[in-house]
Amino acid sequence: MSPGSAVPPPVTAVLDASQRWLPARLGEVEERLRESISGWGGPLGEDAGATLAAGGKRLRPMLVLLCAGEAGGAAAVRAATAIELVHMATLVHDDVLDEAPLRRGLATVAATSGRGRALATGDLLLSRAFALLSEAGDERAVLLLANAAVALARGELAQRQDAFDLTITEERYLQRCRLKTAALFECAVSLGHDDPGLRQFGTEVGLAFQLLDDVLDVTGPPERTGKARGTDLLDGTVNLPLIVAAEQDPTLREIDLRGLDAGSAEEVCERIAATGALGTVRARALDLVAAGKRTLGATGFGAEQRRLLELVADGVVQRYS
Amino acid sequence: MSPGSAVPPPVTAVLDASQRWLPARLGEVEERLRESISGWGGPLGEDAGATLAAGGKRLRPMLVLLCAGEAGGAAAVRAATAIELVHMATLVHDDVLDEAPLRRGLATVAATSGRGRALATGDLLLSRAFALLSEAGDERAVLLLANAAVALARGELAQRQDAFDLTITEERYLQRCRLKTAALFECAVSLGHDDPGLRQFGTEVGLAFQLLDDVLDVTGPPERTGKARGTDLLDGTVNLPLIVAAEQDPTLREIDLRGLDAGSAEEVCERIAATGALGTVRARALDLVAAGKRTLGATGFGAEQRRLLELVADGVVQRYS
Repeated sequence: MSPGSAVPPPVTAVLDASQRWLPARLGEVEERLRESISGWGGPLGEDAGATLAAGGKRLRPMLVLLCAGEAGGAAAVRAATAIELVHMATLVHDDVLDEAPLRRGLATVAATSGRGRALATGDLLLSRAFALLSEAGDERAVLLLANAAVALARGELAQRQDAFDLTITEERYLQRCRLKTAALFECAVSLGHDDPGLRQFGTEVGLAFQLLDDVLDVTGPPERTGKARGTDLLDGTVNLPLIVAAEQDPTLREIDLRGLDAGSAEEVCERIAATGALGTVRARALDLVAAGKRTLGATGFGAEQRRLLELVADGVVQRYS
Repeated sequence: MSPGSAVPPPVTAVLDASQRWLPARLGEVEERLRESISGWGGPLGEDAGATLAAGGKRLRPMLVLLCAGEAGGAAAVRAATAIELVHMATLVHDDVLDEAPLRRGLATVAATSGRGRALATGDLLLSRAFALLSEAGDERAVLLLANAAVALARGELAQRQDAFDLTITEERYLQRCRLKTAALFECAVSLGHDDPGLRQFGTEVGLAFQLLDDVLDVTGPPERTGKARGTDLLDGTVNLPLIVAAEQDPTLREIDLRGLDAGSAEEVCERIAATGALGTVRARALDLVAAGKRTLGATGFGAEQRRLLELVADGVVQRYS
């Protein structure tokens, strides 16, 4: 999405297709996000506010709201707000680590206010999520979100541990993605509605999301994704396109990842693309989305609710950034 | 305390004075801390385990346990574990920011494993605290701890915002300490027992703790405190000894904090000491402890429980690091 646009195309499709309650609830989530971040007086909330203003797809809140349905009411809005706060916390902390100057095309908190403020801002967003849910006595939601936050951190640790290691297997990569990305999608749908089939939908869509993220990291273009091509490579993150590409072109395993700069990272992106790996990974993401959509049949959801969730799932693999 | 010793003198005094249940419960807390951190297989928990092994005074868990009393049982042990996990998370994150090579005389996670792993380890410890409490359905404890974690992050943000500013007032400094340090002490006593007088005890003792920390940052010696003298100065943190000293010696306000190195920071420490500010701040800490102890009279606690809490309060101002 371009930095200025509040709602990217696939999300708009969902909004158009749904009854009036969904956009209204999403509006309430934005309002709650603002409340959660501001209101501390002075410039304390500035950094968190900047993260909020940078927008985003609000995919996780939308999954919470859609799975809860119109009857979800205030509890669903609260859970949707809390999960986005946790997501925002991970973005702000990722930027501390990656030293990324841009996120969603705008300057990161780390870049404008320094690592120190970015780190504290992330801690604040994370803590605020648990305060919001526990103030309302949403015990089940606290447990789901706490476990998801543990998974996120474990995934992040695993990624750091695997950094610069070109021998990482696809299996290890997928295990990491389950923790780092899919757990929060699974949490989102579970916050909305408790159902094993739905949880699997969340996991598959979450994995698909990460796979497409990896593809976009290689393809760019930066003006659409809001970040430089090969950011993962520069960060030492061996992603699925690289793993798949190295099976076709084993010389890719000889790259000195620590020695890359922006220019040579772009060259590696070209070499990955030349192997056809991007098509393979994109197809894998589409398969995951298709599998996720099939599990919806086993839920008790009606045709309309299933259709809306299918639109969100499709949106995950039809996007930039 | 020296790096190797598990329990510093004032804490030993409390243990000696109490009935058998307290050391047993503290042992259970250590066990729960280990469980919370390990058991993820492989080296994922290594960094968090290193933080655990580095020990610490376990002041906050002890306050939880003492305020809950012998009847506090498993819920008190859980709350004591959770609050120490949050405290450990802040230490690990502080080290990311401060680039401190040592903590409690041992190498920090940031120094041994890099900022990335340290940041994720902190996130993991924080999330694990909420997971632990919510797994057990401890709603009240989740709310108390979430609000305390929000306060901690706000205090950290305020400290970053005030960094390198030699015009910070004592009032602003104390407001920051209430958020950054005292809130977690207040949370500790409240996790143990719900009582307004006790909350005030927690706040006063927490402030006293921070004031003594500031004094030790100026006095050292590093072999006792486990960190270099003037670490706050090098970090841009204008602490109370400096604020008080600058009232006596206004030329201290002309220091270029950004231009300090280890040697010149030690010289500034000597200049602060020369004003007599350390005695003033130490006296202030003792006054806070005395005030805190007086509030215990208004609680429903019996003489023995009050005496143990008074020993902990005294321990806060009779310590190194």
